Amino acid sequence: MTDERRVRDIGEFGLIAELEAALPGPVRANERVDVGIGDDAAIWRPSDGLSSVITTDTLIEGNHFRLDWTDWRSLGHKMLAVNLSDVAAMGATAVLATVTLGLSGDERLADLRELYRGAGELAGPHGVIVAGGDIVRSSGPLMISVTAIGEGERLLTRAGARPGDRIMVSGTLGASAAGLRLLAEPELRAKATTADLLVAAHLRPNPRLALGRFLAGAGATAAMDLSDGLLGDLPKLLQASGARAAIDARSVPVLPALRALFPGTWLDLALRGGEDYELLATVPNDLVEGITREAAAIGATLTGIGEILPPDDGQPLLTLRDLDGTEHPVAAGAFDHFG
Amino acid sequence: MTDERRVRDIGEFGLIAELEAALPGPVRANERVDVGIGDDAAIWRPSDGLSSVITTDTLIEGNHFRLDWTDWRSLGHKMLAVNLSDVAAMGATAVLATVTLGLSGDERLADLRELYRGAGELAGPHGVIVAGGDIVRSSGPLMISVTAIGEGERLLTRAGARPGDRIMVSGTLGASAAGLRLLAEPELRAKATTADLLVAAHLRPNPRLALGRFLAGAGATAAMDLSDGLLGDLPKLLQASGARAAIDARSVPVLPALRALFPGTWLDLALRGGEDYELLATVPNDLVEGITREAAAIGATLTGIGEILPPDDGQPLLTLRDLDGTEHPVAAGAFDHFG
Repeated sequence: MTDERRVRDIGEFGLIAELEAALPGPVRANERVDVGIGDDAAIWRPSDGLSSVITTDTLIEGNHFRLDWTDWRSLGHKMLAVNLSDVAAMGATAVLATVTLGLSGDERLADLRELYRGAGELAGPHGVIVAGGDIVRSSGPLMISVTAIGEGERLLTRAGARPGDRIMVSGTLGASAAGLRLLAEPELRAKATTADLLVAAHLRPNPRLALGRFLAGAGATAAMDLSDGLLGDLPKLLQASGARAAIDARSVPVLPALRALFPGTWLDLALRGGEDYELLATVPNDLVEGITREAAAIGATLTGIGEILPPDDGQPLLTLRDLDGTEHPVAAGAFDHFG
Repeated sequence: MTDERRVRDIGEFGLIAELEAALPGPVRANERVDVGIGDDAAIWRPSDGLSSVITTDTLIEGNHFRLDWTDWRSLGHKMLAVNLSDVAAMGATAVLATVTLGLSGDERLADLRELYRGAGELAGPHGVIVAGGDIVRSSGPLMISVTAIGEGERLLTRAGARPGDRIMVSGTLGASAAGLRLLAEPELRAKATTADLLVAAHLRPNPRLALGRFLAGAGATAAMDLSDGLLGDLPKLLQASGARAAIDARSVPVLPALRALFPGTWLDLALRGGEDYELLATVPNDLVEGITREAAAIGATLTGIGEILPPDDGQPLLTLRDLDGTEHPVAAGAFDHFG
């Protein structure tokens, strides 16, 4: 019986598992490559005491961005930012990035220059080199694929959270998802000047590179960046760490502008909204106070939102204490692009 | 006056120059990143005495491959091979590769498993790890983007050829372009059993990793891989090295099957046909004999086809001695995908 299943029948995460299984074992990992398919990035050791990471993210016009909602300079910022955010999540220093563009040939040169300027403006302060790539002709929508390389001595992965660790997030959550809503609803956006703050969070997310490096050196046990929403991403960290967690909705940091503009849905945006590119980290309890204070000294805010619990097969992976104090299990599973 | 030029007005190489110029200077290179936009790969130094390289190549259905001309396993081989060939050209050891797929969702799971099996079969013997990547949904044609990482102590670039160096190529030239013709002309393919050899050269090129490493250690002065045809690629090496060259058509290695099946066009296929993924290297004259002999010991053939000449503004960059002994200047310029 032939296997007639299609990609949409098994979804993104099912496909990743199937493709990994199709590789011979020695091609999946060896003594020099630590993390293969699945984490924010792959890690290898070019020499003793040094780890390198590689991560890649692709943006497709119509799926990941709309040219009537973003300017080209912001798009250039974002194409690099989403990759640097993965480097930040590992606690690495970003070194270089390559850019691949799939173009129809009809693109305006001036627009593509703006794209690169936006990337350059983000790369510069972080010391990242934009080092070539590939330009291909495609009959499809505009395609932008960026690969970033980072390095560090002690890197963080999603695996490593231990029972008792505090779960912390940087910045605030939900602003990017709210910004996306405002781009789709110009009448709502026109209601408040604070709306631009949310739109900017969507168009120009800031990769938390300095914070990631600090967390790796200061004793955080695990980290990842939030791209698919807290309730989509935290279960991935829990699965990788073999742990459970309880979080408290009342502790989740949210911008006042977000609450004001979305009085009925702000919590849902904060818990399930994607593309925040904030860091989610787990920190041993005795380090929480010092790490929070020192993070503030480098301009980063960290907020505790819950606790890592020991594994227990009979218990839900993730429990959420709601605004009214009631506790609910949260179903695992992130947004599936083929769902 | 606004710049209304489009990508197709300035072509691939004009675009690369424009995009590089749009980056702030410090984002184009620093003390740790050697080669930016333009070479086969970018080089950086993760630690003293060690260089890493990154290269990326993207294949778009309809432009770079046709699913009615290739099986999925061969496509998996080729998507990795074209990247490993860039690593080979630098004389590096390939370490890992990431794969990004742009899918409609309608693809058969069994086909994608074959794609990964093909990649795995090539990766295994070379010790390369396939370490994750990204899967995105796209309304466009199937898109496959692979990034490969390599490492070495002494790496080769396109810059470094010196007057008097011998110009050498590995294997034979033109087989891949001939194979592509045979895929388009099944009647011609049916005429000779040797046709399959040429088709295989097109569908499953072999990256010359061992040869590249050997050349880097043995004293070659410059190298690149042949993807755009000898007369398209050699001028890039000459420009990077600031040198001229003379080559002899009678020395170019060509398979007997290619001459037999294409009696009128075999030389054109060998000189201008793309996707050979053989290595083009320059070797100091006193090392030619030893390098040729030692290359044979690792199963690689190297053939001298010409000589590097000193720069001279009044003279053509590249001169070709034809089969009849007459000499012609060769116009520089590789195939432009937007031309």
